[in-house]
Amino acid sequence: MEKDNRQTPEEKFRYYSGAIRRDMGNLLKWLLLAVVVGCIAGAFSTLFSFVLKAVTGYRKAHLWTFFLLPLFGLCIVFLYEKFGKDDGGTNQVLSTVRSQDDVPWRSGPLIFISTALTHLAGGSAGREGAAIQLGGSIANLLGRWIHLDEEDRHVIVMCGMSAAFSALFGTPMAAAVFSLEVVSVGVMYYTALMPCMIASLIASHFAAGMGVTPEAFHVVNIPALSLETGLKMGVVALGCAVISIVFCIILNETARFYGRFFSNKYARVVAGAVLVIFITLILGTTDYMGAGAELIEKAVETGDTDYMAFFWKMLLTALTMKAGFRGGEIVPSFCVGATFGCMAGQLIGLSPSLCAACGMAAVFCGVTNCPITSILIAFEMFGFKGVSFYLIAVSISYAASGYYGLYKDQTIVYSKYKAKYINKHTKM
Amino acid sequence: MEKDNRQTPEEKFRYYSGAIRRDMGNLLKWLLLAVVVGCIAGAFSTLFSFVLKAVTGYRKAHLWTFFLLPLFGLCIVFLYEKFGKDDGGTNQVLSTVRSQDDVPWRSGPLIFISTALTHLAGGSAGREGAAIQLGGSIANLLGRWIHLDEEDRHVIVMCGMSAAFSALFGTPMAAAVFSLEVVSVGVMYYTALMPCMIASLIASHFAAGMGVTPEAFHVVNIPALSLETGLKMGVVALGCAVISIVFCIILNETARFYGRFFSNKYARVVAGAVLVIFITLILGTTDYMGAGAELIEKAVETGDTDYMAFFWKMLLTALTMKAGFRGGEIVPSFCVGATFGCMAGQLIGLSPSLCAACGMAAVFCGVTNCPITSILIAFEMFGFKGVSFYLIAVSISYAASGYYGLYKDQTIVYSKYKAKYINKHTKM
Repeated sequence: MEKDNRQTPEEKFRYYSGAIRRDMGNLLKWLLLAVVVGCIAGAFSTLFSFVLKAVTGYRKAHLWTFFLLPLFGLCIVFLYEKFGKDDGGTNQVLSTVRSQDDVPWRSGPLIFISTALTHLAGGSAGREGAAIQLGGSIANLLGRWIHLDEEDRHVIVMCGMSAAFSALFGTPMAAAVFSLEVVSVGVMYYTALMPCMIASLIASHFAAGMGVTPEAFHVVNIPALSLETGLKMGVVALGCAVISIVFCIILNETARFYGRFFSNKYARVVAGAVLVIFITLILGTTDYMGAGAELIEKAVETGDTDYMAFFWKMLLTALTMKAGFRGGEIVPSFCVGATFGCMAGQLIGLSPSLCAACGMAAVFCGVTNCPITSILIAFEMFGFKGVSFYLIAVSISYAASGYYGLYKDQTIVYSKYKAKYINKHTKM
Repeated sequence: MEKDNRQTPEEKFRYYSGAIRRDMGNLLKWLLLAVVVGCIAGAFSTLFSFVLKAVTGYRKAHLWTFFLLPLFGLCIVFLYEKFGKDDGGTNQVLSTVRSQDDVPWRSGPLIFISTALTHLAGGSAGREGAAIQLGGSIANLLGRWIHLDEEDRHVIVMCGMSAAFSALFGTPMAAAVFSLEVVSVGVMYYTALMPCMIASLIASHFAAGMGVTPEAFHVVNIPALSLETGLKMGVVALGCAVISIVFCIILNETARFYGRFFSNKYARVVAGAVLVIFITLILGTTDYMGAGAELIEKAVETGDTDYMAFFWKMLLTALTMKAGFRGGEIVPSFCVGATFGCMAGQLIGLSPSLCAACGMAAVFCGVTNCPITSILIAFEMFGFKGVSFYLIAVSISYAASGYYGLYKDQTIVYSKYKAKYINKHTKM
């Protein structure tokens, strides 16, 4: 302000009009880019959604495809050995947002095909991580074509991630905030807020227009918040925090187990597939094939689940993903949370339907360390009515889930227990 | 992980059990502190709410109290000269969260009394800023009594801010996130997430139980999101961004105007009060007295407003607050946003009720630079139905509102236009 006083009105005018022109230009540029990325990444993600739906339908009608799991595993490993040696999965997309790292364009088609194969054969794997890679690699390619500088490329990659997530899941708000929140927990990449929001909204509308139904579940019984229900929810949330740590440890230990016994990637994927088939035959259920959306639906909408469902989903997801199959861990973590929450609600005497919804949000928060996204996704999937319970579940799960996480390149910038800077990589 | 392999199982066990004990201890400590702060700050804030309601009711029934504005102004300045020389208002509470700065305990009673006097005389001022100071100073005092270290004191001050905000306004989620988000824009103080959420929920339930009704308005007409409605909302949001910059400039220029012509604080407050009375008599309406909740209600629930209402609210708030009266600028900024949005909606042909709601969130975002809080407060006050429009309004307003803000100690950590670190103080 002092400085302004010394300037002449003319200089002031020139300074401010220049600043306004530059800022408005930037705004329009990003509005336009957001629309373009929203359409393109949204379109690919919509296609991805249709393909996954088709292969899942085929698998359900022809259960023998499950026995192709080892064969498809070999195909996936072959594809990645041949074309994707330097592919780092979702983790790499996240690190692109922060560093000069690059998503190879091949990541897009690779993850598309290999996730479809994984789902066709009924491996226990998600699809959001795949969508994030797909959207990130498309946006990165676009950014290189139009010669964006490095800082702008970070923003456009976030846009692509958001758009693809949003189209697949129909949750534009959570999708936009996830990209801002996930890379460095405690730092919000607000520069990308407007582009990500616009890209997400466009992508989700595009997908909805093409007939992709947004994921939404109806919570059947939401009690009033009281001391009793609040405390019970706190206990369930604490359980969810423990489960999210256990899930991360199982994923990591499975990877070590495979690494120790199968140094050959082809042998590893066949062994993993055989293990998954073996366990599935013993359990005698097709429940754990694919992402697990049916289990979530059953837990939330009827308040019913098998007591051990959360454990089997964790184990089978770890065995599938760490063997070399592709997809993602986000929907499986939703499924683990919903089934665990439902079971905990039955045990403790609090609406199992509500506990399933809260468990889903809480375990997602525990494994991704993204509390705002978790709260928003609960609103978008379950509505606003149980808000107080979602807040309790997510905030306690965040505080109690330690520094474990799905993505090793994620950093947690501030301690969860003390108001101080730590900038720690998550443990897996 | 490498490190773990070299440890014996016993060392590992001791390490992990120690870590778990420490983390659980921390969790329980903060749960307990959050409950205590939620109750105490919630109780004081509830009392504050009743007092404000009572004085506002009295003022409405006895309009002559408006002519006591100069006298009450003198009282407030006297109180601050005598007991609060070092009081920095809301700004100081924010800087306490980040630095070793301290909120003097006297801030609590001072802001309580002076805000009540301002509202009794019908000055145009808010109450959220006052509640934040009240909650912050109570929590700070509590923190000193129980000898919390500096880092924990930051967290407990955030708890107090959240609890008081939440009790007064009935928006626990926005209240909790506001404390985490407002101090350094782009950095989320997630350490305080769980304590702030719990304190907020308890405070809002306490207040609701005592009969404080949460602020909530019914948006009457929400059209479907289409290219047309989306673009129109974008234009309204851009207007809101400009208005939020103008509001900050008017506040700042008014302070400079007073500073130039009235170096004596007593003369300043009398002159300000006379100006406010003079303008109010010319306008011939009592609409702009107090925080402006009636104007928000009218704009949102009926889609009706005076075309110049937003301007007069900005001017009268600046004249009142910068003369030395106390309260806050948050509800006035809501009021400015709602009346401007309503007017813009009428002009542009988009539901004025919805535009009022979006305008409120967008101007709040523009002056506080808190997009997540703005989105959440829209949900809590207007429901979840218009979500796409709130997202557009808030994200565009954030991107287009520059580095202006209400709080001079707020920093914006990342550029709004480029993904880079700037750590800039907001302009006023």
